[in-house]
Amino acid sequence: MSQNTSIKPAWIGVDWGTTNLRAYAMTEQGELLDECCSEQGMSSLEPCAYEAALRSLIAHWDLPNPCTIVACGMVGSRQGWQEAPYRAVPCTAGTDSPVRVNHSGNDLNVWLIPGVKQNDPADVMRGEETQIAGFLALNDDWDGVICLPGTHSKWVHVSAGEIVSFRTFMTGEVFQAISTQTVLKHSLSGEDWDHAAFETALSDTLSRPENLGSTLFSLRASDLLHGQSSGTARARLSGCLIGAELAAAKPYWLGQRIAIIGNDRLCDLYSFSLSQQGIQAERSEAGAITRAGLVAAYLSL
Amino acid sequence: MSQNTSIKPAWIGVDWGTTNLRAYAMTEQGELLDECCSEQGMSSLEPCAYEAALRSLIAHWDLPNPCTIVACGMVGSRQGWQEAPYRAVPCTAGTDSPVRVNHSGNDLNVWLIPGVKQNDPADVMRGEETQIAGFLALNDDWDGVICLPGTHSKWVHVSAGEIVSFRTFMTGEVFQAISTQTVLKHSLSGEDWDHAAFETALSDTLSRPENLGSTLFSLRASDLLHGQSSGTARARLSGCLIGAELAAAKPYWLGQRIAIIGNDRLCDLYSFSLSQQGIQAERSEAGAITRAGLVAAYLSL
Repeated sequence: MSQNTSIKPAWIGVDWGTTNLRAYAMTEQGELLDECCSEQGMSSLEPCAYEAALRSLIAHWDLPNPCTIVACGMVGSRQGWQEAPYRAVPCTAGTDSPVRVNHSGNDLNVWLIPGVKQNDPADVMRGEETQIAGFLALNDDWDGVICLPGTHSKWVHVSAGEIVSFRTFMTGEVFQAISTQTVLKHSLSGEDWDHAAFETALSDTLSRPENLGSTLFSLRASDLLHGQSSGTARARLSGCLIGAELAAAKPYWLGQRIAIIGNDRLCDLYSFSLSQQGIQAERSEAGAITRAGLVAAYLSL
Repeated sequence: MSQNTSIKPAWIGVDWGTTNLRAYAMTEQGELLDECCSEQGMSSLEPCAYEAALRSLIAHWDLPNPCTIVACGMVGSRQGWQEAPYRAVPCTAGTDSPVRVNHSGNDLNVWLIPGVKQNDPADVMRGEETQIAGFLALNDDWDGVICLPGTHSKWVHVSAGEIVSFRTFMTGEVFQAISTQTVLKHSLSGEDWDHAAFETALSDTLSRPENLGSTLFSLRASDLLHGQSSGTARARLSGCLIGAELAAAKPYWLGQRIAIIGNDRLCDLYSFSLSQQGIQAERSEAGAITRAGLVAAYLSL
């Protein structure tokens, strides 16, 4: 974490999720001066503890008084600092309608960007709407589908500056649960990776998604009977689960212009997987996109 | 547990799985005299501890000397008392070829029933082969498919007294992992049950298995947005996962004669699910079937 007290932000952007709190010191023009983060995400905080956690994280910056804070993510959920009620699709990404936190002292003006909900099929997002707003701010008149891979991957149909519909897939979290909490844990340890096995499992599951149920245990049996390596098993499980996601998300990507937001290994896998289906997805770096969304919200105040 | 020292078994049958150890005091003719069990399953035992665990459990019976013990289940795995190597399909259920434990004192003759393996697609069973042998002993000339629901459900094609092929589905274990180790745990607590929701989810997943990936998170979102009850969410998750299993196992049950081994709530759900597909499955009680398999092994010695 930076300890540079010479940093004089005009305002502060905050990305406050389930596991992490990340603050950006910004200029009036939306340039990044400095950033810092802590592990004081929603899952480790009572509602009354948010203000102190934020103040502690940004205390080393030379803040204006009052200081405007614009925050996105789970901080606006019912279990967060204060609820910023969901807006319903079809709607803009919501950075034009932040909600003021009622009590945070006279020296801080804290605004929370509301999440977005879809009533049928039931779905919700908190944080991704800010990335979508940021992406649209950096890409004028962009229509298509934005894919945000992660613990809870999202596919979001965007048209004419609005979120039209979206679906969430628990792919990352299901991978974690199956690979650590079932008998497969004995066959998937380590970090090795067999890319050819990923590709085969992806292709098989995408073309025959109904076979997913019978594939999982074979990852264990292939180890017991044929000494399959853990790198092959990990890659096969990942290929199966991303393949199942792509099979279900097909109405979102088939024949569409696709952008992937993210810069990690998981996004590489999604990008590769889509390329196997003939889709050349655009890539955007997640941090810059999030900041662009926070800037859009700040400018709307 | 019984403590009746007047019980004089001719031999002892043992069902020794991952979590439980169950012993049956049997007559020479294969009638049950008494039974007892402990939680000293494979997962809690080092290989050197099996003999003491068994002796302790059966010490209150008046044993012959030497006493014959016939055991099935994970006790014969590589991490068990002694490995009883898998037999490969197509093969009989294996109760005609138990493996002698090398060292157990002169007063005990311990035999382990080998598991069964399938090389392609890779699959294994340990314990279910004994139930299959028991079922076939009680049902002469039975050809068809035997379904054994559970943590690891199995579908086993049986013909002319042999196991022809089989597949394992991690349905029970995946349900447990997803319902306790992901964000869904907040929406699935308790034991309530919404049968209509089960039926709808089963039918939807069976007819459109590719949609499974998008259904899971909607269980959470339906709670957040519409106050869906935990009983509805639990039943929907169960319906989705059993539906996915039935979709993948369709080559096993479509147009086949089906027997379900088991007497618990889960077997009721499988029986109901198959009936929705026009299949009237036969039901057999698991304990009696297991004992019949152990008797078949004893008679083969």
